[in-house]
Amino acid sequence: MKNFSSISDIEDINAWIDEAKSLKSNPYLHKNLGNNRTIGLFFFNSSLRTRLSTQKAALNLGMNTMVMNVSGDAWGIEFEDGTIMNGTTAEHIKEAAAVVSQYCDIIAVRAFPTLTDKVKDESEYVLKAFMKYATVPVVNMESATGHPLQGFTDAMTISENSQSKKPKVVLSWAPHVKSLPHAVANSFVQAMQKMDVEFIMTHPKGYELNPQIVGDTPVVYNQEEAFEKADFVYVKNWSSYKDYGKVLNTDPKWMITQNKLGNAKFMHCLPVRRNLIVEDAVLDSENSLVIQQANNRTFAAQLVLKKLLENA
Amino acid sequence: MKNFSSISDIEDINAWIDEAKSLKSNPYLHKNLGNNRTIGLFFFNSSLRTRLSTQKAALNLGMNTMVMNVSGDAWGIEFEDGTIMNGTTAEHIKEAAAVVSQYCDIIAVRAFPTLTDKVKDESEYVLKAFMKYATVPVVNMESATGHPLQGFTDAMTISENSQSKKPKVVLSWAPHVKSLPHAVANSFVQAMQKMDVEFIMTHPKGYELNPQIVGDTPVVYNQEEAFEKADFVYVKNWSSYKDYGKVLNTDPKWMITQNKLGNAKFMHCLPVRRNLIVEDAVLDSENSLVIQQANNRTFAAQLVLKKLLENA
Amino acid sequence: MKNFSSISDIEDINAWIDEAKSLKSNPYLHKNLGNNRTIGLFFFNSSLRTRLSTQKAALNLGMNTMVMNVSGDAWGIEFEDGTIMNGTTAEHIKEAAAVVSQYCDIIAVRAFPTLTDKVKDESEYVLKAFMKYATVPVVNMESATGHPLQGFTDAMTISENSQSKKPKVVLSWAPHVKSLPHAVANSFVQAMQKMDVEFIMTHPKGYELNPQIVGDTPVVYNQEEAFEKADFVYVKNWSSYKDYGKVLNTDPKWMITQNKLGNAKFMHCLPVRRNLIVEDAVLDSENSLVIQQANNRTFAAQLVLKKLLENA
Repeated sequence: MKNFSSISDIEDINAWIDEAKSLKSNPYLHKNLGNNRTIGLFFFNSSLRTRLSTQKAALNLGMNTMVMNVSGDAWGIEFEDGTIMNGTTAEHIKEAAAVVSQYCDIIAVRAFPTLTDKVKDESEYVLKAFMKYATVPVVNMESATGHPLQGFTDAMTISENSQSKKPKVVLSWAPHVKSLPHAVANSFVQAMQKMDVEFIMTHPKGYELNPQIVGDTPVVYNQEEAFEKADFVYVKNWSSYKDYGKVLNTDPKWMITQNKLGNAKFMHCLPVRRNLIVEDAVLDSENSLVIQQANNRTFAAQLVLKKLLENA
Repeated sequence: MKNFSSISDIEDINAWIDEAKSLKSNPYLHKNLGNNRTIGLFFFNSSLRTRLSTQKAALNLGMNTMVMNVSGDAWGIEFEDGTIMNGTTAEHIKEAAAVVSQYCDIIAVRAFPTLTDKVKDESEYVLKAFMKYATVPVVNMESATGHPLQGFTDAMTISENSQSKKPKVVLSWAPHVKSLPHAVANSFVQAMQKMDVEFIMTHPKGYELNPQIVGDTPVVYNQEEAFEKADFVYVKNWSSYKDYGKVLNTDPKWMITQNKLGNAKFMHCLPVRRNLIVEDAVLDSENSLVIQQANNRTFAAQLVLKKLLENA
Repeated sequence: MKNFSSISDIEDINAWIDEAKSLKSNPYLHKNLGNNRTIGLFFFNSSLRTRLSTQKAALNLGMNTMVMNVSGDAWGIEFEDGTIMNGTTAEHIKEAAAVVSQYCDIIAVRAFPTLTDKVKDESEYVLKAFMKYATVPVVNMESATGHPLQGFTDAMTISENSQSKKPKVVLSWAPHVKSLPHAVANSFVQAMQKMDVEFIMTHPKGYELNPQIVGDTPVVYNQEEAFEKADFVYVKNWSSYKDYGKVLNTDPKWMITQNKLGNAKFMHCLPVRRNLIVEDAVLDSENSLVIQQANNRTFAAQLVLKKLLENA
């Protein structure tokens, strides 16, 4: 593994889950691995869990950490090739990525989509430019179309909580007031497709995810029907993919309630808007796994960093 | 001590002062205590001394540090219970505090008051929500109504500079152009009430602090009279408590001058506006203790962190 | 050396270059030198290379690092003496510099010029105030009129790439849309004047740098003529010094092209605007040294910090 950009970089998800669990039970075992190694965390967007858990993962491995908000701390970055840079951007990604590779042994990047320009977003121009011009491994801390650190975390959390041999996992859309990215939903779908689970999705019509990602994962448009006998309900809002970036539906009937959930475990990547996405009763119940998911972010990241360091 | 939220968390202030002095003379003695322990510093407001001294204190104990400006770096946080989160806040404190507890062994928080909503400020809704929902110790880095790291620092500094058995300490209000919080003044009053000092306050009428905090500490409305035979004059502006958050008085006669001070030591928590709060001659004299106070912030914080780590 | 504020603080540039090369080949040899020592990096302006390379340099020496954006994180700082601080600034540099000296063993500062007030900029009021009121060494991370960490890096990079005994080095102005500082150009001139090189400058009329810095370094106003038989072409835009801070010329004929350069090595401090300052073909060629320069920033800073720590 040269970079960690997508769920498809995970060759054997069960082996990875086992190793991440092992790191969780003994986080400081590889504390010398990161000796004199430095990770740079570069944020084009806000972050709480990813910012802290990725730092924590690096610290557990004995790495040095350097964290930057690209926009506020440094210069506007140009991603177009061949352009005459007489506008607002002051530094080209060709230099930026090569330069930070001089100071960092691993580069981690967060860059959200525009949600207005589908072609640009799907090109993953920020993440791919870092991967192209950096001379060290790049880690995706949520890009335009994927959030694989989250997706792998979620697979690990399901594995930790699974009672049955082949649990039923449902990804459910829920309403939100703003236009949100598809990244978390995409990576969750891809992670579940690699797991030995019964996996289906439910969302209103018009909210179909990228068909290339969905593949033959069944979609059930009736939420109640989808939740029947579910072991895990993973909830996330996203904006329309077809009518790109649009909010087509805010129907509160899609909100997750305790009544709908029954005994299923509730999962969400956070941050979550209470009583809009999910009612308080669910988050405050013992069936909510959201804090365990947040905790597992550390060990998912730690495994990725460990693999990249060992490969260096 | 589960959390450090207020001066009232200090059981025996003289024992604490002795121990803080001991840390000052040997700052790295407990460098292994923080091994594989992480502190998260979360700022809702600006900070210079608190930001650096708390980091330094943690580093002296061998801890890892992670620092965040909550507003700029992460998501808007919701503190109301039961609300439908369809506005500007994206994450509820219930999740935020529980989540950061997964990455941090100690959480330190700075959150200033509104100075417009007295009930809300006095509820200490930010600090108390962190204490309620975090699963690790919480340290107050200045909340709506208290700044106990500063108050304890000030007690330590007075102890270091005390010539007489029972020094006379005066807390004096001084004029300012903006509406400032009561936190530093409150914690100083509470710290002095625990010390073996002769403690009085002086300020214009209308600037009475919260009577529950003042208790039976004498107030002398004549500044000159209050300063007579003072050993220490601690200066701070605050806005009105009764006429909540209002600037009622900007009379330059209340500014601290060398002439008024005589041989008394001058103290201030900083930042201080020169020639508005206090004239240059005072700050530039040998009787000013402000830099020593700033230095002692490290050891006050280090003692608090040490106690919380030992208690963990 | 008490502080590192200017190229003139380098006594023997060849000895420094040798030592910086030695750090580059063995970066962790002095990892114990920074044990329990802390550097504070204070940014009044944006930074990418300087921010990361100075942190990296400190980490290589085993130091702790604390990084702050002064404006966003802390308080507005007052630099005028004797002023009544009833405006927007909340803390005087007298306190700020003395206070951070309590937490940091070395203070590094970046503060760009106004480019509107020549007298103020040339007074170097920010850097000099830090040097005056700090009680620990101060490092210039680019001030109003100089960027000596960059200048020394550039001397080191030329030394690494020099084929001939006495290479010809040309500093060339190139066009830009914004008004840029003179700091990098000034420090490069000063560094070259200390080196055993044939050094000339080229720029349009009206772009003469401060004559006190230029001294007897030849200026050739014809760029093509200046580039004849050049071994190194160092490129930078700056605004007019005489007509202070003005953009007098944006003639694209001054842009650096592969054709103009021939076999000369291309150097630039970065960030660089592609196809405005220099065409893609140059930056993408093997004759570009810009990434090597960026890498050498670490070892230039590491040498400066090492000298300051050893001197402490």
